[in-house]
Amino acid sequence: MTGPAARFRKLWDEIASVGRDAGSGGYLRYALTPPELRLREWFREQADRRGMPVHSDGNGNLFAWWGDPATGPNSHDPNSHDPAGTGAVLTGSHFDSVPQGGAYDGPLGIVSAFLAVDELRNAGAEPVRPVVVAAFVEEEGARFGVPCLGSRLLTGDIDADRAAGLRDAAGVSFADALGGRPAGPDPALLGRFAAFVELHVEQGLALVDAGVPVAVGSAIWPHGRWRFTLRGAGNHAGTTRMADRRDPMLTYAFTVLAANKEARLRGAHATVGRVVVEPNATNAIPSLVTGWLDARAAEPDTLHGLVEAVHAKAAERARRDGVELTVTQESATPLVAFDGGLADRLAGLLAAPMLPTGAGHDAGVLAAHLPTAMLFVRNPTGVSHSPAESATDDDCAAGVAALARVLEELACH
Amino acid sequence: MTGPAARFRKLWDEIASVGRDAGSGGYLRYALTPPELRLREWFREQADRRGMPVHSDGNGNLFAWWGDPATGPNSHDPNSHDPAGTGAVLTGSHFDSVPQGGAYDGPLGIVSAFLAVDELRNAGAEPVRPVVVAAFVEEEGARFGVPCLGSRLLTGDIDADRAAGLRDAAGVSFADALGGRPAGPDPALLGRFAAFVELHVEQGLALVDAGVPVAVGSAIWPHGRWRFTLRGAGNHAGTTRMADRRDPMLTYAFTVLAANKEARLRGAHATVGRVVVEPNATNAIPSLVTGWLDARAAEPDTLHGLVEAVHAKAAERARRDGVELTVTQESATPLVAFDGGLADRLAGLLAAPMLPTGAGHDAGVLAAHLPTAMLFVRNPTGVSHSPAESATDDDCAAGVAALARVLEELACH
Repeated sequence: MTGPAARFRKLWDEIASVGRDAGSGGYLRYALTPPELRLREWFREQADRRGMPVHSDGNGNLFAWWGDPATGPNSHDPNSHDPAGTGAVLTGSHFDSVPQGGAYDGPLGIVSAFLAVDELRNAGAEPVRPVVVAAFVEEEGARFGVPCLGSRLLTGDIDADRAAGLRDAAGVSFADALGGRPAGPDPALLGRFAAFVELHVEQGLALVDAGVPVAVGSAIWPHGRWRFTLRGAGNHAGTTRMADRRDPMLTYAFTVLAANKEARLRGAHATVGRVVVEPNATNAIPSLVTGWLDARAAEPDTLHGLVEAVHAKAAERARRDGVELTVTQESATPLVAFDGGLADRLAGLLAAPMLPTGAGHDAGVLAAHLPTAMLFVRNPTGVSHSPAESATDDDCAAGVAALARVLEELACH
Repeated sequence: MTGPAARFRKLWDEIASVGRDAGSGGYLRYALTPPELRLREWFREQADRRGMPVHSDGNGNLFAWWGDPATGPNSHDPNSHDPAGTGAVLTGSHFDSVPQGGAYDGPLGIVSAFLAVDELRNAGAEPVRPVVVAAFVEEEGARFGVPCLGSRLLTGDIDADRAAGLRDAAGVSFADALGGRPAGPDPALLGRFAAFVELHVEQGLALVDAGVPVAVGSAIWPHGRWRFTLRGAGNHAGTTRMADRRDPMLTYAFTVLAANKEARLRGAHATVGRVVVEPNATNAIPSLVTGWLDARAAEPDTLHGLVEAVHAKAAERARRDGVELTVTQESATPLVAFDGGLADRLAGLLAAPMLPTGAGHDAGVLAAHLPTAMLFVRNPTGVSHSPAESATDDDCAAGVAALARVLEELACH
């Protein structure tokens, strides 16, 4: 029998080429596009191979059950935060990627979940509660703009009609991509889960610094997206005197630098990674520049102060530039403190450190509805959302072992 | 009989709606797309209506002849700069627009040319040299990326094979749009022209300041386009510590502000109106930002100093940001001093001021090959390359009268 790292590599290689850009090595696995549909098909094959029936929630999320999915609603009280209820133990993650994303963000949690099921079975474990592997849809929001769209639909954190009407860059609606209007919240299904544990590649260097392969998540930083709309006066780049200009690109540039400075001052994170310019022509002063600020901090007050400071600086510069500024909050995710009892229990079980993260996850959405935990696997580059994202096979195998240990703890006693 | 402003309005209204975006009022008249093809058809109708046979040069440029186009090559020596040779007098401009451009930039020169022919005929003028109205193709470079493509092909300033292979955003080549490989330089046709006079809406406020409707062009500022390629490290916006980032958006923003400052210091023009970001996602630090600098100045040394200063500042910031900078000059247009004798003669004839411009024109390309002049018509907003570009009917009529006077001077004596 081969070792755990080789078993990981064998299964991993089955999907490694799906949606990979041969030039860059980056992944283009947008939700419900051919590469992601191919991965969903692979999910069903893996479930079939293990005799795990697959159910969909009508929102694009898939659930493969080890144990009887027809079991009636369990007695779990979602307010009790008691992972030892009678409900199923949910694990898994997502397949979709950002543009030119890495291989591990998402798929690692699904591949590890199937391998953890194998480990438990090889060890002769006999779960007293079902173990369910999930593939959530559109976690990144890279196609339809709203991250964690699948988990938000399941929990009711987004209105199904609003989700149905979200459109991708080509104008295709989420409903059309899904093949029908999403079903929306499913409290009965949600009530059948006693806990959710999402395994994810680390998106930073804390585990490299700590010298260990696996950590338990403690919290997700509060974060949000703010759209800065800067309206100036389109004009000819060659003939318009500098003093006569109302150039929104100047206000944009100033805002980018201000966001960076204000985040550094506060120990927070601020990024302007997306910009749209009209008309975006070399010889035209833009009439309109739209930039998106992504801001995150450990504390809600810090985040609020950061965004207020960037807004104030942008507004002052806009006045100098003769530019009209509108700031719109597109999304806000409050501080998610994972279930403390569950996190402590898993950290003790695994002798693993606790780690907060600045990234959003489906676990952050589900944490408001049932006891939820995360496991992070070391990433030697610390890079994610990029082809440079990585994890060694040995560390991935350590992640599988940790997840199997956690599932055994939560489902077999 | 109606007055000249009403006659202008009547002909102008025939094309005012072609390619206009009903929402913004801006024009989308890209070369060889349906709106511009409709305008070329209108050009042929106008020429037919006046008994002016239309010839194409095989490069997409159209020429309507008042006088015999079959006249053999004239005796004009292109080095003599003598507009009183035996060759034809060329006028006209272009139909194509930038994205969301104004109505006047280009079409005003063609409409005014036909109306000037009418004025001469109504006055009983009898040209001793042909008068030719031109419609040049792809002056803005908005579809295939190279401005003045038609005039550059006619003069041989661009290789016909290179032009044939230029592609628009949809991947259509110029040769396919044209219906065949462009014919390339036509020195015989060029040699038949004794002078070129292009009438154009002013792209600034100098005539508003001067309080007169028409000026004569003195020079086109030297100008060029430089591509700044900024390569950093793509990463997750939420999880990457500020100190660990190599964010090319920061270098881009700094460069935008540096270009503005350096241009103001020198009395020059600098614009960064176009940017392309990869992956351009809200939650990803960009891996690659490409910005285009458009820079112009009255003197070549000033322009050189400006671009050097911006390059140096960008390079210094790139080092601080851990970003790799490459600067590529995409185009360079040297100082064009229009034929001094011709400009002086026309300014005297019209009692009009002389005016330099920062904008490129087909006249700037042809000026290297034959005596060339420009007439500018007052623009109350000073704005161009935008729906706000404008000119009053009275000023347009003054432009027609000035052009008719110039054609009479050059073609009838």
